Amino acid sequence: MTETGNRRYLLRSRPSGRVTVENFTVVSEALPELGEGEALVRVLYLSIDPTNRIWMTDMEQYMPPVALGDVMRGAGIGTVTASRSSRYPVGAIVSGLLGWQEYALVREGDPAAPGLLPPHLPVSLSAMLGVCGLTGVTAYFGLLDIGKPKPGDTVVVSAAAGAVGSIVGQIAKIEGCRAVGIAGGTAKCAWLLELGFDAAIDYKAPDWREALAAATPAGIDVYFENVGGEIGAAAFERLAMHARVVLCGFIANYNDGARADTNLTPLLMKRARAEGFIVSDYGPRWNEAVRALAGWVAAGKLLHRETIVDGLDRCVDALNMLFDGANTGKVVVKVAER
Amino acid sequence: MTETGNRRYLLRSRPSGRVTVENFTVVSEALPELGEGEALVRVLYLSIDPTNRIWMTDMEQYMPPVALGDVMRGAGIGTVTASRSSRYPVGAIVSGLLGWQEYALVREGDPAAPGLLPPHLPVSLSAMLGVCGLTGVTAYFGLLDIGKPKPGDTVVVSAAAGAVGSIVGQIAKIEGCRAVGIAGGTAKCAWLLELGFDAAIDYKAPDWREALAAATPAGIDVYFENVGGEIGAAAFERLAMHARVVLCGFIANYNDGARADTNLTPLLMKRARAEGFIVSDYGPRWNEAVRALAGWVAAGKLLHRETIVDGLDRCVDALNMLFDGANTGKVVVKVAER
Repeated sequence: MTETGNRRYLLRSRPSGRVTVENFTVVSEALPELGEGEALVRVLYLSIDPTNRIWMTDMEQYMPPVALGDVMRGAGIGTVTASRSSRYPVGAIVSGLLGWQEYALVREGDPAAPGLLPPHLPVSLSAMLGVCGLTGVTAYFGLLDIGKPKPGDTVVVSAAAGAVGSIVGQIAKIEGCRAVGIAGGTAKCAWLLELGFDAAIDYKAPDWREALAAATPAGIDVYFENVGGEIGAAAFERLAMHARVVLCGFIANYNDGARADTNLTPLLMKRARAEGFIVSDYGPRWNEAVRALAGWVAAGKLLHRETIVDGLDRCVDALNMLFDGANTGKVVVKVAER
Repeated sequence: MTETGNRRYLLRSRPSGRVTVENFTVVSEALPELGEGEALVRVLYLSIDPTNRIWMTDMEQYMPPVALGDVMRGAGIGTVTASRSSRYPVGAIVSGLLGWQEYALVREGDPAAPGLLPPHLPVSLSAMLGVCGLTGVTAYFGLLDIGKPKPGDTVVVSAAAGAVGSIVGQIAKIEGCRAVGIAGGTAKCAWLLELGFDAAIDYKAPDWREALAAATPAGIDVYFENVGGEIGAAAFERLAMHARVVLCGFIANYNDGARADTNLTPLLMKRARAEGFIVSDYGPRWNEAVRALAGWVAAGKLLHRETIVDGLDRCVDALNMLFDGANTGKVVVKVAER
């Protein structure tokens, strides 16, 4: 790909149910002329997250929905290829909301402008979107700041073989907790045990509810909710006294209108708490999390996996992997070579 | 009534739906012989609360359900009429789980034994079950300790003309908040405005959702949940950023199996928190609440109403008033004259 055109995915229609390529208009535009303070970023990797699906809807959400006709929003990492900005020199590596496109125009001083990555990275470039990026930081603050686990607590996480879940369970172990993961299929469950989870519940097995009960004999002190639906409901029923439920996401519900109907009675009977959070609120403490995560990775205490999907044109496929449970660990789309 | 027999309501069957007298066996038993350390308490008032309905079910709850054949559990106030206990002298006034019966046998040293009321009461005897009892203390800790209102916050309470709700709104005003009550009917709503609520939403009016939106232009900072169901769902949809939902009860759900299905997505999008509590956990801080409540009553800042239903045989009717919304303020059954 030479710098002669910019392939971009514009949101054409709001998906009803599963996302398809028909929800997008793919255009190839001329690269923009740079104004003063602007730079051109070549997108290298895009982070594929459940929240991409939320942004496509017009439900009330934590950021404005992507407007029809706009480039699809997505977090990513890229490199500056042309610049009229002293903040963004050519060759710099940036991370931020670059979008589903080959090139992003960035403007210094824009509140949404991407951040610069340091020259020496603790992990690979793609993992700067995962274990040391949005994903890891989400797991870190969600578990520690909202879940407030104490040593000896039983921590249960759903979508445990996913990007966030697999890190949540490992941080729980680092904090001296019992970690129980819920995931779909024997291969994922075997991986969770390799990561050091104390138990892994395969929700595709017919007796998964009994297995969850057996793995949490004293109930659940912290439930890290990534999925909602039946799995979330089963976890609520097993909450221990004064339990904390970390509401990170409800992927089971996103394709059908993002409702997450849950019976709240266990919260009342167990004097328990459910609290939502959005990692973007933790901007001022971001480096604290990245330092801790990088330290654990370096010490071999925090393992991670990536599913790298090749090519901008596979973003929709990559996103649907999350809804199909087809991935293990973090899903990224590789858009270009560094 | 002379001390020759003890009329008692024993739970015969667990109600399905609405409670009826057929769910009870009414017996008249001889008064018991007192052993050493025991006393006989004549029940004067019984507190009628939504939780009575929960105790009749065998759902998982914060206390063991009432066993079939046992006397129906209920909070009450009574006077000691015979005693072989130095802790409970004849004439003493006690408050505790006396049960739906004319006389309760109490034993000193029993962890569930009732407490002694002080000789000088800040309010009437019946109000020691209401504004300065279980009801007021529930409102106090639920709002202040779980809801953590800040001056200027918008506090919304459901079942606002009920025993707990009417106190919650008034404490919210004392704390410098905007208080919005949701209640059924124009008479109740008029009373809420008399109490100083800033707005009262009549959920029996066809446009109540629009009225709730109009009364909470900046959203809801604290939602005190007494009912669940559609009202709870509507309040969740209007939560403001970092809102706190105090889960006190779900009376809309108790007659149909105590489910309280609520869409949790607003908690996620608004980084909000829902937390259950049980007033019995606040035993060590009980007097702090009673002192504050009594002080506000004395200062004329906290008004209260009672619906006094006459006669032990009307406990079922009195309980159903709560489910029909037939009461204003606290419902007590008067069992005997002091």
